Amino acid sequence: MKYSVVIFPSSKVQETANSYRKRYDTAYAHIPPYIRLKEAFDLEEGKLPQLVSHLQQVADTTSAFSARFHRVSTFHPTNNVIYLAIQNKEPFVELHEKITTCCAESKELYAFVPHLTIGRDLTDDELKDVYGQLSMAKFDLTSEIDRFHLIYELADGIWSVYQTFLLKK
Amino acid sequence: MKYSVVIFPSSKVQETANSYRKRYDTAYAHIPPYIRLKEAFDLEEGKLPQLVSHLQQVADTTSAFSARFHRVSTFHPTNNVIYLAIQNKEPFVELHEKITTCCAESKELYAFVPHLTIGRDLTDDELKDVYGQLSMAKFDLTSEIDRFHLIYELADGIWSVYQTFLLKK
Repeated sequence: MKYSVVIFPSSKVQETANSYRKRYDTAYAHIPPYIRLKEAFDLEEGKLPQLVSHLQQVADTTSAFSARFHRVSTFHPTNNVIYLAIQNKEPFVELHEKITTCCAESKELYAFVPHLTIGRDLTDDELKDVYGQLSMAKFDLTSEIDRFHLIYELADGIWSVYQTFLLKK
Repeated sequence: MKYSVVIFPSSKVQETANSYRKRYDTAYAHIPPYIRLKEAFDLEEGKLPQLVSHLQQVADTTSAFSARFHRVSTFHPTNNVIYLAIQNKEPFVELHEKITTCCAESKELYAFVPHLTIGRDLTDDELKDVYGQLSMAKFDLTSEIDRFHLIYELADGIWSVYQTFLLKK
């Protein structure tokens, strides 16, 4: 089964993100808005307890923090993805590094840039158009981040939550 | 904000349910397949810690169990809903009763019948047709139930998971 580790930001940030995702993100109906901490990876069910125990340990040793989403950015030309960029990347990078020390067989493909996807699978023309509009908009969204989630993918591409892990307060 | 408390059954049961929900359930893209333990209710954010602490206490004092889905049923004529019926209702009823003792201001509208919705908002003709077909099919699905989830609804009707609560093993 395919798993991933993500953060769902505050409902306000999720609602703002979904107002764009509804139009521009092909995964809109598959998962609520998320910040990915570890790329999707295959795991045998037998190894799940070891992963859960690792994630619990990471959560127990990491403090809650605030995130600020301050502008729209894109991974073009690597990927035609548009995302809300995060101003304070450090706490996300720290979480990412702690989480990915486990299960070393699933290497990350991309350098880690914390982001909240609001558009994907856009054509070059769509990307230019949408990014052109959104890059002029002002964003000033903050979210308390006090938990992350281990999620898994169902056969139809929909993601379901397996477990929440609460950060130290 | 609107909250609810639900169980997401095993991925195999979710995948079977989604093969029907994709065609017959208008909430297919809003939430993975679920068994509702408490009807959706409004809660001020300030009262959230009290609810979380109550749910934690319920989880700590309830043992994990198995559920068996054995046939398709319907709430017609009350609601044009088709669902996977649960053979062993008792552990769900126990969880429902423990959970709903909290936050008494939000009374349940319906008598509690644990079920996994696979179709809703069907016309009478559709319901008759689909239920006629599915009621002849044999179902023998089991799922280990070792957790439940507190979820909340975003402005666009999509549900996001707030927290997982693990039952006693």
